[in-house]
Amino acid sequence: MPKVRQQEVQFTILPDEKELLLQAGENLLVALHKNGLDIPSPCNGVGTCGQCRVRFEQGAPTPADGDRRFLNSQEIEGGWRLSCLHRVKRPAKIYVVSQTGRLDTKVRIDHLLELKESSSGVSVHPLYLTPPGRDDQRADTQRLVEALGGGAAIPLPILRRLPTALRASGFVLSVVRVEDEIVDLLASDRANDIYGVAIDIGTTTLAGYLFDLGNGRQVAVHADRNPQLAIGGDVISRIQYGQEKGKEGFAELQSLVLNGVNALVEKMAGEAGIGTSSIYKMTVVGNPTMLHLLLNVDPTAIANSPYVPVLRDGVALRANELGLAIAPLARVEILPAISGYVGADIVAGMLYANLGERKAIELLLDIGTNGEIVLAVEGRMFACATAAGPAFEGASISQGMSALDGAIHRVYIHDQELVCSVIGDKGARGICGSGLLDAVAELRTIGLIDKSGRLRRTKHPLSLRIEGEGAKARFLLVEGEASGGVVKKSGDYTPQVYLTQKDIREFQLAKGAIRAGIEVMLEHAGVESADIDRVLIGGAFGSSLRPESLLHVGLLPPINVERIVSLGNSAGQGAKLALRDRKIAPRLQQLIEETEYVELSFIKSFPSKFIKCMQLPTDEQILQLQLERLKGGIEVDNHEGKAVS
Amino acid sequence: MPKVRQQEVQFTILPDEKELLLQAGENLLVALHKNGLDIPSPCNGVGTCGQCRVRFEQGAPTPADGDRRFLNSQEIEGGWRLSCLHRVKRPAKIYVVSQTGRLDTKVRIDHLLELKESSSGVSVHPLYLTPPGRDDQRADTQRLVEALGGGAAIPLPILRRLPTALRASGFVLSVVRVEDEIVDLLASDRANDIYGVAIDIGTTTLAGYLFDLGNGRQVAVHADRNPQLAIGGDVISRIQYGQEKGKEGFAELQSLVLNGVNALVEKMAGEAGIGTSSIYKMTVVGNPTMLHLLLNVDPTAIANSPYVPVLRDGVALRANELGLAIAPLARVEILPAISGYVGADIVAGMLYANLGERKAIELLLDIGTNGEIVLAVEGRMFACATAAGPAFEGASISQGMSALDGAIHRVYIHDQELVCSVIGDKGARGICGSGLLDAVAELRTIGLIDKSGRLRRTKHPLSLRIEGEGAKARFLLVEGEASGGVVKKSGDYTPQVYLTQKDIREFQLAKGAIRAGIEVMLEHAGVESADIDRVLIGGAFGSSLRPESLLHVGLLPPINVERIVSLGNSAGQGAKLALRDRKIAPRLQQLIEETEYVELSFIKSFPSKFIKCMQLPTDEQILQLQLERLKGGIEVDNHEGKAVS
Repeated sequence: MPKVRQQEVQFTILPDEKELLLQAGENLLVALHKNGLDIPSPCNGVGTCGQCRVRFEQGAPTPADGDRRFLNSQEIEGGWRLSCLHRVKRPAKIYVVSQTGRLDTKVRIDHLLELKESSSGVSVHPLYLTPPGRDDQRADTQRLVEALGGGAAIPLPILRRLPTALRASGFVLSVVRVEDEIVDLLASDRANDIYGVAIDIGTTTLAGYLFDLGNGRQVAVHADRNPQLAIGGDVISRIQYGQEKGKEGFAELQSLVLNGVNALVEKMAGEAGIGTSSIYKMTVVGNPTMLHLLLNVDPTAIANSPYVPVLRDGVALRANELGLAIAPLARVEILPAISGYVGADIVAGMLYANLGERKAIELLLDIGTNGEIVLAVEGRMFACATAAGPAFEGASISQGMSALDGAIHRVYIHDQELVCSVIGDKGARGICGSGLLDAVAELRTIGLIDKSGRLRRTKHPLSLRIEGEGAKARFLLVEGEASGGVVKKSGDYTPQVYLTQKDIREFQLAKGAIRAGIEVMLEHAGVESADIDRVLIGGAFGSSLRPESLLHVGLLPPINVERIVSLGNSAGQGAKLALRDRKIAPRLQQLIEETEYVELSFIKSFPSKFIKCMQLPTDEQILQLQLERLKGGIEVDNHEGKAVS
Repeated sequence: MPKVRQQEVQFTILPDEKELLLQAGENLLVALHKNGLDIPSPCNGVGTCGQCRVRFEQGAPTPADGDRRFLNSQEIEGGWRLSCLHRVKRPAKIYVVSQTGRLDTKVRIDHLLELKESSSGVSVHPLYLTPPGRDDQRADTQRLVEALGGGAAIPLPILRRLPTALRASGFVLSVVRVEDEIVDLLASDRANDIYGVAIDIGTTTLAGYLFDLGNGRQVAVHADRNPQLAIGGDVISRIQYGQEKGKEGFAELQSLVLNGVNALVEKMAGEAGIGTSSIYKMTVVGNPTMLHLLLNVDPTAIANSPYVPVLRDGVALRANELGLAIAPLARVEILPAISGYVGADIVAGMLYANLGERKAIELLLDIGTNGEIVLAVEGRMFACATAAGPAFEGASISQGMSALDGAIHRVYIHDQELVCSVIGDKGARGICGSGLLDAVAELRTIGLIDKSGRLRRTKHPLSLRIEGEGAKARFLLVEGEASGGVVKKSGDYTPQVYLTQKDIREFQLAKGAIRAGIEVMLEHAGVESADIDRVLIGGAFGSSLRPESLLHVGLLPPINVERIVSLGNSAGQGAKLALRDRKIAPRLQQLIEETEYVELSFIKSFPSKFIKCMQLPTDEQILQLQLERLKGGIEVDNHEGKAVS
């Protein structure tokens, strides 16, 4: 057991009984992050997402108001708290819901890849060298390499610094290596400063995770907009921009994303109080177009049939080759992809989910503008990508918006009452992808939407919320401020929010594309949907979706909800694994070589499947799903206490 | 037997009976060089060095005037000709004196390293790729690498060119690889253009050898002054310059040598009619200071005790890392050194001489401002360097000069006649190192110099040429034009040329330092000079020295002259070997690790040995040497016909 120093408080992480010493007074979420515990916190610890919950077995603090917004009384009694709302005070024993934002804590995610021994390949070696003398005329490089035990490569910039560095320090210095290459020479007292960063370059969002590679702990995390959004919202518009502008266009796109990544890294470094020049390794994931643009490699061929990327395999570079503002000789690993539309982000997720390692039939899904699908059938793997369109991003939805303050992100119909959960503490301004999914799912469940997707009036009291007819019909989700409705708190801006018939049609296009992709994959692999052992939902967005809703709109084939597992930002998690373990990159390479890519646009049956899959489940199917759920009977119902009341 | 095309003439190289087809009308030396035959030609084929001799067994051309200048009548009858003086006319069978400028053709140099199979590591692969299609969505890189049979690394600049290169050429192109790295993409019809260059960076001279790596043949050779001469004549003055000027000083020195090498390469490329961007490999040798300066690595520590270099091991770089104007991704190999004063030039010579590969005691000597000595004792190897000073360069000699037109480079005393051989067809202007050596040796042999190095008058008729007394005494080598003396041909500028008493003292310092080094090495290894099986003289300068003279001044311990072998530019030869054979670099690394370096300045007995070794041989020793020579009786006397008459 570690010795307790003053102002340190002992926390025990269950069930492993791992002992941590946390700084008294520090924010608990931050303290846990610092200790390498991957607790999701999409809202960045401001208490608005509810995903950073932990369960106190001993030493629970008094519940905060914020706890009550996201947790029901049963949960609060059981010791659940949002870690971002509490400070470290007294010793405690806690359970951490690892790596998932799922509300259902009963699903044990025991199959995710965890590093047992982690070795990033970055190492620091304090050296006390004997200065040259009559009896020791070894060359500087030889002196250095022999002290390191041999096998060190010395690049030219280090060679040039070496004679001065040795003599200025009296032959006492620390050497930083990445694999066998010497990447930095440090004054002796800075022996522990080695950091690494994992970057997930999304079309919309850049996410970064800063790690202390000395102890393997995460010390900062940050997300920001991809500055390329100024050029275009999706990959195709950016490729077109580059194509039209020629070489400079792609150079400009590269420069935008580099600036974004550099700013992100600088922010994290500032937060952790370190210099960016102490960052010696970076792993990068993203979709293929994003990674081509990062490298300033023309991705035009990805946009046109037969959709071929220039690059599929992983690439290792030095930071200064790209212009990344970390240690100049830092190793940058761009992780490998499967095809032009199934990228390193998906491969990283496959790794994190340990896909293909089990004798089971598993489906990995990343839902967004593009839906990527990987089906693992007892070790064999098949991948495809399908264009879902912008509905999930809220872009083609009448009052659609991103998952920011004011977005309806959850919709429940409880008995006969409609409950809309809004992000932030002000009123609703619109609806985001997860809210859209819930709204369609719940209205289909009570029958106010029929299986073809049409809004229809029934005897249900909520029928009263339907206005208009036919293509102009719409359903009132949130009444504006004036009406004194369900909006939690009066804000500056609380309009009425509707789900329109057209919104439902847009949603059907998106979900139909993904479901059709799933059907093609199952057919291709020769398995039935009933055979699926587990559906893994990757990606930050996908993980924010209610599994029940995915079933009730028929985006997923009918399976027991317990078989659905949300992985959180699986791409980022995979990138973090590769950052901390040098053996991951070759494993990823193996993964992509073992995966068969299926090009949906070349599958003849896809269009007809797509049209069929736009349908919502039939009444019988809905009934069946509800029965399944009751049969399971182990669902924790989280609807209570979460209403915008 | 190859088919004879029009205007091609068949030459047979004996004793191997290798058949060559040479272009009719071409200069024979050039034609032989083009076929990869390493015929020495320090004067660059202008007929003034006499080293490019070949022996016609059949088809000898009519002797030219120039032949008679360097060859005696016996040799001319025997078929010897200077290859630079003749054109290819009719079929012939010739012997080539491989790799040596030695006049004595009886010493078979059968132990030099020759490449049996040569593989430079540079290869070119014409590829006819299938364009992507519905059934083949492989990434560009994957398509390329699979066509190459796998295992190809693609650096970022190539990756960026790849999509355009593939599509512009209709997926037909040639790929150039160095080892497993792709370094260039070529239009399909240029499949054979791969070249390499070996560079020897001397303190005074840059020498370059351009090879067609497709067939392993040398296509151009060139030498030029090292532009750093403008900064200082020796390594120490250049290091001091860099030290005084700080970082910019070394950067300036680097830029000078880079310019020099780039100009040399461009000249050779122009001569061979190729583009410098077709040069994909460069091997570089030189003394350690020269190589540090090439890399812009501060060599200051080499200049001060304990004389430690920064770099000893070999370095492999890309050409664009250094600013070399060849293919940007060309592989540049800086070959390894042994110590701060025993450099890659010596190691390359050791390799070329196959030193340490025989069960024998062999001494390798490179004579210049610094004398480098390597002693091999049945596989064990010892190396040292000794500062001979500038006498051999002619710098501290009253009428000293470099081995250029007008330099007395050979001095013979035949019976009672003095014969001075002058470079070029004009009169004597001064004396170069080899002439100085000969003059001292010959005057010591006839007794006009005593064993202490003093000029003295005897009954010998040449005593009349001694003028003055004591420290002011001097010996008249060449009478000026007015006197109508031994000068061959009246020129614009034919002064009297003297060997002064001071010149002899300077010479004694130089030869004493080298001999003392040899003595220390023998003592260190525990062997006697009588045990030496062979003395190998490396370096262009050393190889221009008469072995007999080296013995008669006591620069070498007394051994049979037949045991002395001149290697020519052994450094350049070693660099060429490493250029053409990728397995050489690791072999050099092994060589340096197996060689024990002895620092003479730390050897207590060195100063006293040095003083003792400044003495010239005694009368008895001279007599003994003459007897040995008579006993051998196999020496070809080359004195006749070589006088400046």
